Amino acid sequence: MNVQPQPLSAAAFAPFGEVIEAGAQAEQIMINSGHTTRFHALATVGLSGADDRAIISIFRSSPLPRPINIQLLERHPLGSQAFYPLSGRPYLVVVAPPGELDCRNIQVFIASSEQGVNYHAGTWHHYSLALDGVSDFLVVDRTGPGNNCDEIHLSPAQQFSIDY
Amino acid sequence: MNVQPQPLSAAAFAPFGEVIEAGAQAEQIMINSGHTTRFHALATVGLSGADDRAIISIFRSSPLPRPINIQLLERHPLGSQAFYPLSGRPYLVVVAPPGELDCRNIQVFIASSEQGVNYHAGTWHHYSLALDGVSDFLVVDRTGPGNNCDEIHLSPAQQFSIDY
Repeated sequence: MNVQPQPLSAAAFAPFGEVIEAGAQAEQIMINSGHTTRFHALATVGLSGADDRAIISIFRSSPLPRPINIQLLERHPLGSQAFYPLSGRPYLVVVAPPGELDCRNIQVFIASSEQGVNYHAGTWHHYSLALDGVSDFLVVDRTGPGNNCDEIHLSPAQQFSIDY
Repeated sequence: MNVQPQPLSAAAFAPFGEVIEAGAQAEQIMINSGHTTRFHALATVGLSGADDRAIISIFRSSPLPRPINIQLLERHPLGSQAFYPLSGRPYLVVVAPPGELDCRNIQVFIASSEQGVNYHAGTWHHYSLALDGVSDFLVVDRTGPGNNCDEIHLSPAQQFSIDY
């Protein structure tokens, strides 16, 4: 099966998390004596326990060989995970709603080079799919006690390719 | 007085916070079936109370007119504040250690387009100084109850210009 990615938008992504972009719909606050516009609270970091911390990392990802074949999804039950692209390239976002995974509900988005995503805790997702070259992402996620990663390998019948 | 900025490095910035960069000294973890290097936990978000949340925003900043004159500093006593440049341009970072402000301890750094900073709670800092054009920054900071911003206006004798 071949899936065509749809453009990423806040409305389409709402069941899965937040889109991080300096768009017109964001709350805008003028600060720094008028020298800065703050596009405010585009995403909120989700944590679970008193010992949890939000951390900032950089992911450096290589593109998968084409055709890009989706074979597994993961979720982080205890915290959100945000990605913002740093290399000026679009990337692919593959998600399914929280709860028991139903492959019929998998959605594929293409994010622009000026759009980040914040997966809510529990949202099923493929790891961010760099395109066209090795790409860096700024990542904001959770560290703390407990298992925070579930992985599901798709059966051959559930696997699919992305038409990019 | 004219101050020459020094290059930003983790060692020089340690009294003020963390430098966010995918450098050799970072902990590196191979993930995503070998397709991603995670430069892990380059910075930790500092929060204070049980009702605090870490949020992700975008700041869009215009450069100050030159010569850049430093007239005020601010600090956030209840949380850290991280900036990562998104526009491929260097920027200036002006800081002083937490505690009572002593202007003799102000330091000026120039950050590259691939270096973010995370100010620890209480670190005095000027707002991030965009250079050469309107520049976006991804910002990770704290929201929650209470006053989280103190500002100090420097006296004319304490003010200085940055030699850039």
